[in-house]
Amino acid sequence: MPNPTPIAAALPSTTPFVGPEALERAMGQPFALRLGANESLFGTSPLAIAAMQEAAARGHFYCDPEGFELRTEIAARFGGSIANVTLGAGIDDLLLLFARAFISSGDRAVTSLGGYPTFEYVVAGCGGLVERVAYRDDRVDLDALAAKAHEVGARLVYLANPDNPSGSWQTAAEVAAFCAALPPGCLLLLDEAYADFVPAAELPAISLDDPAVVRFRTFSKGHGMAGLRVGYVLAANEHIATPEKIRLHFSVNSVAQAGALASLRDPSFLAAVVDATDSGRIRLVEGAKALGISSLPSRTNFVCLDFETRARAESVLSALGERGVFVRKPGREPLDRCVRVTIGRPQDIELFLRILAEALS
Amino acid sequence: MPNPTPIAAALPSTTPFVGPEALERAMGQPFALRLGANESLFGTSPLAIAAMQEAAARGHFYCDPEGFELRTEIAARFGGSIANVTLGAGIDDLLLLFARAFISSGDRAVTSLGGYPTFEYVVAGCGGLVERVAYRDDRVDLDALAAKAHEVGARLVYLANPDNPSGSWQTAAEVAAFCAALPPGCLLLLDEAYADFVPAAELPAISLDDPAVVRFRTFSKGHGMAGLRVGYVLAANEHIATPEKIRLHFSVNSVAQAGALASLRDPSFLAAVVDATDSGRIRLVEGAKALGISSLPSRTNFVCLDFETRARAESVLSALGERGVFVRKPGREPLDRCVRVTIGRPQDIELFLRILAEALS
Repeated sequence: MPNPTPIAAALPSTTPFVGPEALERAMGQPFALRLGANESLFGTSPLAIAAMQEAAARGHFYCDPEGFELRTEIAARFGGSIANVTLGAGIDDLLLLFARAFISSGDRAVTSLGGYPTFEYVVAGCGGLVERVAYRDDRVDLDALAAKAHEVGARLVYLANPDNPSGSWQTAAEVAAFCAALPPGCLLLLDEAYADFVPAAELPAISLDDPAVVRFRTFSKGHGMAGLRVGYVLAANEHIATPEKIRLHFSVNSVAQAGALASLRDPSFLAAVVDATDSGRIRLVEGAKALGISSLPSRTNFVCLDFETRARAESVLSALGERGVFVRKPGREPLDRCVRVTIGRPQDIELFLRILAEALS
Repeated sequence: MPNPTPIAAALPSTTPFVGPEALERAMGQPFALRLGANESLFGTSPLAIAAMQEAAARGHFYCDPEGFELRTEIAARFGGSIANVTLGAGIDDLLLLFARAFISSGDRAVTSLGGYPTFEYVVAGCGGLVERVAYRDDRVDLDALAAKAHEVGARLVYLANPDNPSGSWQTAAEVAAFCAALPPGCLLLLDEAYADFVPAAELPAISLDDPAVVRFRTFSKGHGMAGLRVGYVLAANEHIATPEKIRLHFSVNSVAQAGALASLRDPSFLAAVVDATDSGRIRLVEGAKALGISSLPSRTNFVCLDFETRARAESVLSALGERGVFVRKPGREPLDRCVRVTIGRPQDIELFLRILAEALS
């Protein structure tokens, strides 16, 4: 029988995420409230939906493999050229692309223990070895991350900022100091999936000519297009040109390209989502506090509710699940005492708080 | 500066296809007739379009990473279980997945000289070495392909049946003999992208338990969903389980999944496309013959017009391009004397024949 590569053969059967659909199939009924994947309950720009519906009727034509219009629009917003932008089917696809471009068998990559599992998954899939650094004070520990990168001679370092699953945030100055502290030859993969929820002026100012950092963005969160699978990379020319030699050219489909372009051109929609998320965050934190539950600081579209012990968090997660609420619990210390809740619309938050009160009683 | 892997660094900057959009941007105007990518000019099932338009309005939710409904529907059609089916963003995505699962640096893969370039691209991207076997009598040379697989100890062999770009076809008995002639430990990647245009009874009967063959199918051709990016693999359980350890779980977006499912459930649409393609093929071949141009036999939605010499084919390609017709010419001998033309609707064929007559005069 044909055998797979030694790398593939040695990997465990695993999946970074079990989707809510699989959980629903196991339960035999749908969730009443879906707050576990940080999807935007504010939906998608009506202009984007219209563009996608139009594109769906022309789906017999291949999508543009260069994603020219969308990349041009993105590049213009960041003061770069399309040679600074690559598209992918979400950040996951782009993390895989960069793992394929930078990780050979046995190469090291560094991330936070309990951070985004798909980064570890794509590195392992290329035969790389993942080193993990614990969170400190419920935030990514930048000093320890840089020290570990030196210690193991890391080729890639992963940092999500704002962070998932904690919701925490490193200032522009902290990120700049972290970049300066990384060893030469180490590439920082800076996952800014939640950047839409932070004022642009507060984001780290990273030059598109800086060859030490690659930034990842997505239409999944603020733009409300998680199901469409559109992400992009902002990077120095050479970090676009090299992955270009191995990337899949048709991974972002025609409907997704049309929707993302229309959503970018509808900034007032995104601004309204961000405003509503800010108000929702305040209400969710206050509502939980009224039930005796504190929250971790967040600059994202989710909040970690702090149940103080892993056992209590598990029990609340289970009680919420029984009541039809899909949320997730970070799996590793110290955040495993928390339950992560997406910030929905006012009616979603009120419903969640009512069910939480029930689950706690 | 962070350096890419030796494999990525050594690769040339290349792209398997320059899309028609890029050609249009270079020309400064759109093509009048798009017959170069074997897209279906018969469009997409109205039921699929409706399903996609509905799904586009719910795109803020992630797609099902397991593709459960679509895989279930596909499996049922082939008498298998969902453990025999993997989805991908088109066959390209799935070829990459199998290259990643089976090709380590230096491993050999065998294909036809002038065959589907993306297969070579994904193998090279994993550090594999591609061996090519010339066509014989304008068809894939199965004997030579099997002999080369033995000679180089190939891990993968690629066969498109029906073939692209020739349009030719190997019978079920020929494919069965070819499978039997391959060396042990060599996996056959059987690309059946054009299988919808062949009566099911004439396709090779390959058991879903056979660990020596993996079949690739797509919604791009007969189903008219090229822009949506949906392909699938039919294979023995172990060839689904191993790639599952390294595949991207969210590569087929929610709109694409919904459209493919609806299209599968609309078999009369596909049957009408196949019928119209059969009639169109006859008309295109006759019309070309009336202009003194013979055609290669085809069981696909395209026909290779035979201009006898490479120089003449190039000149016709160029003359067609100047007149706004997007078609492609195979790049390698012996098919480089041909121009490949997608079979469109009756009006597309008549327009093409009028422009061809002009181009020839």
